[in-house]
Amino acid sequence: MIEDIAVRYADGYPEKPLFNPILIEGLPGIGQVGKLVAEYMIHILSAEKIGEIHSIYFPPQVVLEEDGLARLARNEIFLYREEGKRDVVFLVGDHQSTSGEGHYILADCYCDIAEELGVKQIYTLGGFGVGHLVNGPRVLGAVNKKELRPPLEAAGVTFDRDEPGGGIVGAAGLILGLSAGRGIDAVCLMGETSGYLVDPMAAASVLSVLSKLIDLPVDPTKLNDRAAEMEKAIESMVEGEKGKDEELSYIG
Amino acid sequence: MIEDIAVRYADGYPEKPLFNPILIEGLPGIGQVGKLVAEYMIHILSAEKIGEIHSIYFPPQVVLEEDGLARLARNEIFLYREEGKRDVVFLVGDHQSTSGEGHYILADCYCDIAEELGVKQIYTLGGFGVGHLVNGPRVLGAVNKKELRPPLEAAGVTFDRDEPGGGIVGAAGLILGLSAGRGIDAVCLMGETSGYLVDPMAAASVLSVLSKLIDLPVDPTKLNDRAAEMEKAIESMVEGEKGKDEELSYIG
Amino acid sequence: MIEDIAVRYADGYPEKPLFNPILIEGLPGIGQVGKLVAEYMIHILSAEKIGEIHSIYFPPQVVLEEDGLARLARNEIFLYREEGKRDVVFLVGDHQSTSGEGHYILADCYCDIAEELGVKQIYTLGGFGVGHLVNGPRVLGAVNKKELRPPLEAAGVTFDRDEPGGGIVGAAGLILGLSAGRGIDAVCLMGETSGYLVDPMAAASVLSVLSKLIDLPVDPTKLNDRAAEMEKAIESMVEGEKGKDEELSYIG
Amino acid sequence: MIEDIAVRYADGYPEKPLFNPILIEGLPGIGQVGKLVAEYMIHILSAEKIGEIHSIYFPPQVVLEEDGLARLARNEIFLYREEGKRDVVFLVGDHQSTSGEGHYILADCYCDIAEELGVKQIYTLGGFGVGHLVNGPRVLGAVNKKELRPPLEAAGVTFDRDEPGGGIVGAAGLILGLSAGRGIDAVCLMGETSGYLVDPMAAASVLSVLSKLIDLPVDPTKLNDRAAEMEKAIESMVEGEKGKDEELSYIG
Repeated sequence: MIEDIAVRYADGYPEKPLFNPILIEGLPGIGQVGKLVAEYMIHILSAEKIGEIHSIYFPPQVVLEEDGLARLARNEIFLYREEGKRDVVFLVGDHQSTSGEGHYILADCYCDIAEELGVKQIYTLGGFGVGHLVNGPRVLGAVNKKELRPPLEAAGVTFDRDEPGGGIVGAAGLILGLSAGRGIDAVCLMGETSGYLVDPMAAASVLSVLSKLIDLPVDPTKLNDRAAEMEKAIESMVEGEKGKDEELSYIG
Repeated sequence: MIEDIAVRYADGYPEKPLFNPILIEGLPGIGQVGKLVAEYMIHILSAEKIGEIHSIYFPPQVVLEEDGLARLARNEIFLYREEGKRDVVFLVGDHQSTSGEGHYILADCYCDIAEELGVKQIYTLGGFGVGHLVNGPRVLGAVNKKELRPPLEAAGVTFDRDEPGGGIVGAAGLILGLSAGRGIDAVCLMGETSGYLVDPMAAASVLSVLSKLIDLPVDPTKLNDRAAEMEKAIESMVEGEKGKDEELSYIG
Repeated sequence: MIEDIAVRYADGYPEKPLFNPILIEGLPGIGQVGKLVAEYMIHILSAEKIGEIHSIYFPPQVVLEEDGLARLARNEIFLYREEGKRDVVFLVGDHQSTSGEGHYILADCYCDIAEELGVKQIYTLGGFGVGHLVNGPRVLGAVNKKELRPPLEAAGVTFDRDEPGGGIVGAAGLILGLSAGRGIDAVCLMGETSGYLVDPMAAASVLSVLSKLIDLPVDPTKLNDRAAEMEKAIESMVEGEKGKDEELSYIG
Repeated sequence: MIEDIAVRYADGYPEKPLFNPILIEGLPGIGQVGKLVAEYMIHILSAEKIGEIHSIYFPPQVVLEEDGLARLARNEIFLYREEGKRDVVFLVGDHQSTSGEGHYILADCYCDIAEELGVKQIYTLGGFGVGHLVNGPRVLGAVNKKELRPPLEAAGVTFDRDEPGGGIVGAAGLILGLSAGRGIDAVCLMGETSGYLVDPMAAASVLSVLSKLIDLPVDPTKLNDRAAEMEKAIESMVEGEKGKDEELSYIG
């Protein structure tokens, strides 16, 4: 019988001791903001893969890689070791759960993983959809313990009592809620985004804040480049729309 | 593995003996009528929180409080002690279940809680949506034992064989059905409401009936104020609509 | 913890031996045809209630009876004893399952009940929706063993290789499929119906065939009366529509 | 209690040893391509039925056979013995799962069956919907191990990094993902199809490639005939549409 969730570690993990580890979660979501940030960091830091998660709560499909290789939908655990300072664990992946119960069960599993690896501080990353284009996206925050708020504010994170009004849906939120009962500090950073498109601009804002917060320099050049390209593409689309309006007003 | 439902009591409950306790349920629902009444009573009576319920059947999201603190969706149990007379337990919360099976399992859990606390009488509160604005909303009733009906009628509760035609959906109804088999008396009070908006007017009607029924004076001033404001706001909207119609007919 | 399905028997059942029992299932479905037939038979024959089924797979709501009494959604088991000849068990109720898995689990439970009561022959009743008004509705059949077909045809049941094309959904069908593996003969009788309205005409056709098949006279007068009323109501609606068309063509 | 999945083997299987067996899966899906191919092969090769699968994850309905016999929805296992060369197992059936979790649980069961029968190589067949009519449909491929790709390419299978972009949904995909962890080689062959209609043309393309790949000659005449008929029917529909356009332009 297939397990509801299967976690497979590589290389002697999770027993291998980590040094002062933190966990950064960046699963798919609004504007793919969290996913962009976490996968970018993994790439730039050349983090090493140490685990994989499969689940019947993921969508029932395989992912096709470029070489025609099909593999199960999965979440992945990566590790970056800052020698003598701290270890950084990343949680990324293809999908979140397709059902409400699955969301809870998976988020609880992510907290199990954090505990197994000795994590005492979690950063969950996501997007905060506002439904319109955003210039200079803010980074909104949420915490699972009051004491965690001041350092976030010092790093430029906005706390707005009305945002996000509907709460935080999915893993980025549930991890905060579920880790509180386990004595793990957790904060959520949400990049303001239209929510319509994959949003590297919002991701760049989140990366900038996160880098500062955890004092981990990550060269943002490539992400900024991608954001700049995106911005240009959107501007030209908007210009196109304006052009149409002008034509129309000319006709009128 | 996360529990499907987790009930956590505070302060030595549920063992601490209660005196002649009744339970008042006011979870979210049509017009938020039940929620408004129960939370208002908790506020006015300064009831004390004695328990919390979490469940994977709630929506998979955290609630953000004003200070940026994220917490799991929850139901809460409050207690108000009428010295020497009776104890009143309240069940309120953020959400009901998102699935049919979850509704049954949670309602059964609520009945477990009632039994653990020695409750012999339950009042479930809700709204009865009629699809149009209501002046002087009636309070409709349902019972889980015939003998419970006359005192309700004496208190002004309406029993209408055709209302609500489709039965009572969710916790307010299921608690009646499930507590019958446990020998717990239960009645449901439903405030007539359009169902379109949060409805403090319907809530005020229910509060008035409930106060009388259980002989528990609760100053209704603030709820009535809120209802009056709402009524004014709706009137001005309706006037606005009429104004538009007049303008249009004038133009015509 | 609430049971997924709870079956409660009355009066010493299911141990009390039945004599040569058959089971007639008439749960809600297309045109309420099966429900109408089975409940009518129970009424006319004054069958006695011997059991009740509750389940978390039913919709999460209580049913309100005329006196304001709320009760859980349920299925019911009735018994009619034809002295010295045969016992007839009826399965009727408020609802079928709301989920696919629940349909299978409940239908399997119905087969358990049939076995517990010693039933060797099941008749499931339903409607066959054709999407247009039907004059002189046919009764279509299905069987779970080839040998069961000829007596049905002799009683006027139609077997049409293309009807119903999509198979038989819900309890009426699944009971046939699941009882086959238990060595219980089962047939399904489906009254042809528009599917738009509760259809006593289709029910009268099914009752007539079933009465003949199991040699159990049930006075059809009241059902026929209801069917006649319905027919008249529909005719006057159709006339009304024609009238409108004529007016319109007159205007044209 | 009904089992979630019940596998029943005939004739002493699965213990009876098979010789060098492969498994061909052709369950319902886009354009019914996989189903058409596998059922055609079973028919032409007169493969013998050796097993049956029932599940509560299939739709809750019975299938009606031509003679009025109702049977549970099922998947079936067939066997074709190529004396002294190899045994070929087929997996076909009425339905796939109706839920995401059910898809995983059933696909895992199919891999159990493959293991029980000693299968070391699986071919899953399906359609690849492109949303427009296709002339000379290509056969796209996916593999669960890199080494499996070159022989597919040699047999004319296309590997396109962007197709299918969204991954492969359902059994055809999940079997690849899940069998990898069991050391079973698996490839998926997808016939290009509009996705609007049952598509014997796509099926003929897949059959041609598969026959070559596994060196199993299957006379394609009847399938090609059906494809030719279908092509003619579509052409005449398209002509009809063109005719309408011409008339309209004449009017204009």
